[in-house]
Amino acid sequence: MSAPLRITVWNEFRHERENPRVAAHYPHGIHETIAGFLRVDPGLAVRTATLDDPEHGLAPAVLDATDVLVWWGHQAHAEVGDAVVARVQARVLEGMGLVVLHSGHYAKIFKALMGTTCSLRWREAKDKERVWNVCPSHPIAQGLGDHFEIPVEEMYGEPFDIPAPDELVFISWFSGGEVFRSGATWRRGHGRIFYFRPGHETHPTYHQAEVQRVIANGVQWARPTIRRPDACPNVAPLEPLPPG
Amino acid sequence: MSAPLRITVWNEFRHERENPRVAAHYPHGIHETIAGFLRVDPGLAVRTATLDDPEHGLAPAVLDATDVLVWWGHQAHAEVGDAVVARVQARVLEGMGLVVLHSGHYAKIFKALMGTTCSLRWREAKDKERVWNVCPSHPIAQGLGDHFEIPVEEMYGEPFDIPAPDELVFISWFSGGEVFRSGATWRRGHGRIFYFRPGHETHPTYHQAEVQRVIANGVQWARPTIRRPDACPNVAPLEPLPPG
Amino acid sequence: MSAPLRITVWNEFRHERENPRVAAHYPHGIHETIAGFLRVDPGLAVRTATLDDPEHGLAPAVLDATDVLVWWGHQAHAEVGDAVVARVQARVLEGMGLVVLHSGHYAKIFKALMGTTCSLRWREAKDKERVWNVCPSHPIAQGLGDHFEIPVEEMYGEPFDIPAPDELVFISWFSGGEVFRSGATWRRGHGRIFYFRPGHETHPTYHQAEVQRVIANGVQWARPTIRRPDACPNVAPLEPLPPG
Amino acid sequence: MSAPLRITVWNEFRHERENPRVAAHYPHGIHETIAGFLRVDPGLAVRTATLDDPEHGLAPAVLDATDVLVWWGHQAHAEVGDAVVARVQARVLEGMGLVVLHSGHYAKIFKALMGTTCSLRWREAKDKERVWNVCPSHPIAQGLGDHFEIPVEEMYGEPFDIPAPDELVFISWFSGGEVFRSGATWRRGHGRIFYFRPGHETHPTYHQAEVQRVIANGVQWARPTIRRPDACPNVAPLEPLPPG
Repeated sequence: MSAPLRITVWNEFRHERENPRVAAHYPHGIHETIAGFLRVDPGLAVRTATLDDPEHGLAPAVLDATDVLVWWGHQAHAEVGDAVVARVQARVLEGMGLVVLHSGHYAKIFKALMGTTCSLRWREAKDKERVWNVCPSHPIAQGLGDHFEIPVEEMYGEPFDIPAPDELVFISWFSGGEVFRSGATWRRGHGRIFYFRPGHETHPTYHQAEVQRVIANGVQWARPTIRRPDACPNVAPLEPLPPG
Repeated sequence: MSAPLRITVWNEFRHERENPRVAAHYPHGIHETIAGFLRVDPGLAVRTATLDDPEHGLAPAVLDATDVLVWWGHQAHAEVGDAVVARVQARVLEGMGLVVLHSGHYAKIFKALMGTTCSLRWREAKDKERVWNVCPSHPIAQGLGDHFEIPVEEMYGEPFDIPAPDELVFISWFSGGEVFRSGATWRRGHGRIFYFRPGHETHPTYHQAEVQRVIANGVQWARPTIRRPDACPNVAPLEPLPPG
Repeated sequence: MSAPLRITVWNEFRHERENPRVAAHYPHGIHETIAGFLRVDPGLAVRTATLDDPEHGLAPAVLDATDVLVWWGHQAHAEVGDAVVARVQARVLEGMGLVVLHSGHYAKIFKALMGTTCSLRWREAKDKERVWNVCPSHPIAQGLGDHFEIPVEEMYGEPFDIPAPDELVFISWFSGGEVFRSGATWRRGHGRIFYFRPGHETHPTYHQAEVQRVIANGVQWARPTIRRPDACPNVAPLEPLPPG
Repeated sequence: MSAPLRITVWNEFRHERENPRVAAHYPHGIHETIAGFLRVDPGLAVRTATLDDPEHGLAPAVLDATDVLVWWGHQAHAEVGDAVVARVQARVLEGMGLVVLHSGHYAKIFKALMGTTCSLRWREAKDKERVWNVCPSHPIAQGLGDHFEIPVEEMYGEPFDIPAPDELVFISWFSGGEVFRSGATWRRGHGRIFYFRPGHETHPTYHQAEVQRVIANGVQWARPTIRRPDACPNVAPLEPLPPG
């Protein structure tokens, strides 16, 4: 039996402590809900970390023991320390996987890896979201059918300012009239990044089976192949060159 | 007659003042050599800026009047102020074009836009570089034939830690045995970015006709289509939604 | 003044002669409507060709004099001769631009260039289509705003079996609940291909200003940079090799 | 224990029977050499098929029982029947993996899936090939280091007329002065395609450990996620529409 895939679920964990409507859906925090459904898979070893932990729960030793990091943040992006962001970015480029959820589109770590504003249009209303599977053979899309619906969600709409994804997996339809590239992947350095749109804190989105399946597929997909620190080596020639 | 394309050529301009071997090739600085051959085109309005100018020569008013920025830096990347880097990045995402040359692979602005380490392998020796045109119909590749040679150049080799380019235009062959993706493009935000490898300061590379042609093609290709500031609008629905 | 861009608009031209509802919108054929709005631009020289012309109107001399070919077909894809398809494919690979419209997703020429089934889901009903601009800086997206609506159109939905586009320009929202990658580009050989979804024959879609703008932008974007026949040259080495 | 991955290695198998120099390297055919080193993995069930078998060894029942097809052809591409090519293409689009080797760049099946000429420049001489790993985290690149050398190989050089790969894994350096995108992947339909350049019949390339490793990695990478026949469904709306 192979070693378990080590997952760290990071959450800002502020809304749940401040807003009873959020706490009603996620009494122990969004991170514990996500960790809980991931733990059903015995091949995963799941821990959690939050903003208000020392070093935001992302000390070097934690990242050393993390294969894939899941990220949820929203109102407190600015409180995430730049040193921690740089540390996480370095680990992704070394090979650690990263799954960024919903409002994490504006997290420092996502913006640093994308290089763009990551802006979008948005609305908190009673939109229905229907997530279309545009790449049915993608590992992240397995077990889902051609589409699934989320009864009520915050709307995110195009244009979404991201680099063109390496792979576009999902496009969302919203009943208010917009579309959004809601599942997308990028390879950066030796690491794999998956962004998945759904998951506003005032809705029970992370309790929905299809959403759980996507995130479970996503952490498997983001599994590292290698971990290799940055280097910019000065090298000798492999073929004879003129002297000088 | 249409308005000229406004180019700003930015150069660190330190090697030329410190190293007589560099000054021999570029007595007025690499920026003046590049500006000089670009100015042959009456459709271009070319200015220059350097690290030791106030605000590195990149005050907001300069960027407001720049359609495409050309960047050469090497030994003093760390001296470029973070505020100026953020300002340039914002302008690129708004639509300004950016042409990054040679050791600019490690410039703060290039790393910020790529999100990766931008590391590579390298060697200063007597390598010959042969630049192969792998996308003959690309606008940047026009007028060049299937390949051209640079008699002596610094070697840059793979793996080069960049996001997969939107378009790969050139691959270089080095006589010491390496290869390199030496011409590549990315769209980021509303701006277009072109990286072109050749141009070590101790060689007369920017005096070579083919290299000049590539850079001239590159600034044309990077021409903005739009300039649009960042926004993340909260929008009303376009279709009727349930109240709430 | 530069030479005009030479456009050939190809149409199957059967629906218009068989179905009065179609003829009501396009009394002289879809090709003449498209040619008509393109001719407003004095920089374009536009001709038309149809299935029932000798050689489908696509004799070698016509293709020699065509910079960009626009293609509309639907019920008679199977009647397009394989030799003509091979001829058109060769020209695209040599550098001729190709703009494929609507039901042309199933045209032999589009399938040959894509290599995939080009299947999709579809419905003829009273869907509203809203076309979202997901790449605002793309030349094809200029002059349009973030979205535009087509009051009634046939629905095409995902998954659409195409190779991942080089550039995704538009995504459509349909009131019946689907989404579709409705504007996409590919480079194949030395030619540029643009697929644009709208344009069912029973609707007046090609009379709508935004649709006309997209097609006009598309033919400009697909303009050839080079025309180069296929070759697979046996070449001498550029560097000394051991004998043998 | 999971079911074995079912591999079919297809070979033209003409050179080996006609040319003693080829037979010296591959006395039972290139297919048997490839099948032999793949069979070392107990997780693979490997069979072979050749051009002169009935239906080229690719009857529907064989393809039904094939997860990944490996293809080597050269002098007799034209003898592969169009019906078999169409059958194989349909299976790839349904999800079967395809690994195309060396001169298979000109195989009907590869050209049909790419949509381009697949032309390149070439030379049979005493070139050394050095294969550079440009995507170190890619599953196909595992176990190889940053580069490996093939002492003598046929040269293939750029420009190589293929659609821009989804992932570029290897670039080759040749001692005669050329470069080549020698390892590339594409997703087409639900299937995965890997092209790998080395393997001229007059050299013992397929006996080299690194080459064997790449091919073994490639068949694992090309493993199907789904098998789904083509469909273009006419569907009912998911949301209420006006009648008509």
